[in-house]
Amino acid sequence: MRHRDEIPTPALLLDLDRFEANVSKMAAHLRDRDKAFRPHAKTHKCPAIARRMIDAGAVGVCTARLSEAEVFAAHGVRGLLVTTAVIGGPKIARAIELARQAPDTIFVVETEQNLCEIAQAARDAGLEVNLAIDLYFGRTGVSPGAPATDLARAITRQPNVRFGGIQAYDGAAAHTTPFDARKARSSGSMKQAVETRRMIEREGIECSLVTGGSTGTFLIDSEIDGVTEIQPGSFAFMDAEYAGIGGPDGAEYREFSQALTVVATVISRRPGVAVVDAGYKAFATDRPFAPTPIGLPGVTYGWAGDEHGRLDLTKSDCDLRVGDRVEFVPPHCDPTVNLYDVIHALRGDNIESIWPIAARGKSQ
Amino acid sequence: MRHRDEIPTPALLLDLDRFEANVSKMAAHLRDRDKAFRPHAKTHKCPAIARRMIDAGAVGVCTARLSEAEVFAAHGVRGLLVTTAVIGGPKIARAIELARQAPDTIFVVETEQNLCEIAQAARDAGLEVNLAIDLYFGRTGVSPGAPATDLARAITRQPNVRFGGIQAYDGAAAHTTPFDARKARSSGSMKQAVETRRMIEREGIECSLVTGGSTGTFLIDSEIDGVTEIQPGSFAFMDAEYAGIGGPDGAEYREFSQALTVVATVISRRPGVAVVDAGYKAFATDRPFAPTPIGLPGVTYGWAGDEHGRLDLTKSDCDLRVGDRVEFVPPHCDPTVNLYDVIHALRGDNIESIWPIAARGKSQ
Repeated sequence: MRHRDEIPTPALLLDLDRFEANVSKMAAHLRDRDKAFRPHAKTHKCPAIARRMIDAGAVGVCTARLSEAEVFAAHGVRGLLVTTAVIGGPKIARAIELARQAPDTIFVVETEQNLCEIAQAARDAGLEVNLAIDLYFGRTGVSPGAPATDLARAITRQPNVRFGGIQAYDGAAAHTTPFDARKARSSGSMKQAVETRRMIEREGIECSLVTGGSTGTFLIDSEIDGVTEIQPGSFAFMDAEYAGIGGPDGAEYREFSQALTVVATVISRRPGVAVVDAGYKAFATDRPFAPTPIGLPGVTYGWAGDEHGRLDLTKSDCDLRVGDRVEFVPPHCDPTVNLYDVIHALRGDNIESIWPIAARGKSQ
Repeated sequence: MRHRDEIPTPALLLDLDRFEANVSKMAAHLRDRDKAFRPHAKTHKCPAIARRMIDAGAVGVCTARLSEAEVFAAHGVRGLLVTTAVIGGPKIARAIELARQAPDTIFVVETEQNLCEIAQAARDAGLEVNLAIDLYFGRTGVSPGAPATDLARAITRQPNVRFGGIQAYDGAAAHTTPFDARKARSSGSMKQAVETRRMIEREGIECSLVTGGSTGTFLIDSEIDGVTEIQPGSFAFMDAEYAGIGGPDGAEYREFSQALTVVATVISRRPGVAVVDAGYKAFATDRPFAPTPIGLPGVTYGWAGDEHGRLDLTKSDCDLRVGDRVEFVPPHCDPTVNLYDVIHALRGDNIESIWPIAARGKSQ
């Protein structure tokens, strides 16, 4: 296969020019503000992309889960931060093995019990493991301020673990609309994180990592003193949801361009309707948006089952025939990518590479 | 791993006793009514399950897509029916290769152009390919009656293709609620299919296959003379949606029992809230239902991101601790299974087998 039109559908396409521009823009923005860049790999789950991020200046990548991190480590990626707590004996044993393989990996903790279990396993293995505290902003983690400071102190008192800093991820801030509300929310959260850092430092504990932020908040968080690192994910691909969160000027969020699409084929045609071969198994459906057909003004997509979508042509002058290809902006990139085995990396119309989504399905 | 509690979460569990009872019940029901049983493998995408269906009396399995069928054929499964038209030169070439490997495979067509392309490719390969006509009931296919009869005649006039019969799948009927409305709709569609069969036979064309039906309509369709085969999928697993479509008595649809679950782990805890490690990447979200926690009365699940769910404990007496496991009925089984690599087949609490979902992601 050389040309995009030879790719069996439905399939994921990545416009490399746009992708590279997105990565360069984010890397330059953070470099200029002296923030580390540790992009979140839960978006792409793809070692080839992680390597390109590191080539662009990233210090490593975040993964949401241990099993994802194992895949990236096995592909030689270092500088891993596992952003979810690792719970229970069997997973802790795997985390220790990962730390042996990739000693700079950072894990996060929320409770002293989990900390003690990890420290014990590290001691048994004769290793030292890096632990950051996960700060609570509405989902998981320990409360900012005194509770977090207590947990930091507890880490420093355990042998075989090293206090790595603070993870301050406010997931809801990323999608807060409009921009001003997002700025208020994310600044508030990040300032709490920085205050917690100062409390920890007043205890004489070094705290050189405050990591957080997202595609939606990087403009905000990267201006805050005391935040050391930004971990955005979707910026490299973009999707319908992120386009809609609103930019600083109140219009669409245009910091990055839409690089990821899903291509489908028209497989059935009736007056006013074209059925494509992409349904619930081709697009994640967790956002209240339908896939957006590209270059077909007035055409709308409707869900038509696990393997089918229905294009309404009645309000459009566009014609489509059986066999025609249609490209879509996906509603939400991360869980859409998780449905596919490979990303087709395109330079214009040509397939430059086919990248395995090696950590697809690694939600454990 | 031997015990269910050792399985890394989130994970798919299958209660084998329930699964086997579901399969036996469907097989016996159809055998008693002299209908062939060709269950739809798009639900499970799992060759081990296809083999169990065939052991229970199935004539083969349906697949939604060519790439799925290729996987089942490679695993030695025969009696394949690919229920979506195969469009375009590259896919037709693969279909011909599949027909060489598994000559009893049946493909469906909707247009004369597609028929001619397949016939030409079969001729070039020196093979004969089985083609059924896909009948339109609101999504894909040729209209019942004269248009379908014309297409059947066109198939018989082409060398290197064999007329295999009629596919009459009315997807919307499967979920029509309540049962009486479902019965009216499905009976109407199936009777149109049988009338079309008679029209084709009056042309002197043998038509020994009328295949359709679903978990929701099998009780209805299996009573209709002239329908030869039922192709249900979800019955083996069940899910929240199918439980809610209503049975003949007006209550829940209780023909089959819930055999498939997703198990997750509590990874964070606050007053009134437990966060589990299962979100959009652990459950398909295309239905308007949340995952249903099992054995935790009053506890409700709320989505909390790609990798997280939030259990509301405030209206329940249940206690949950970090590390506890929670099992859920998934909202919709087919696209949920498509998120995982394996099914853990349990006999009680013990892991009897771990079955690869070999056709996971094969939506092409």
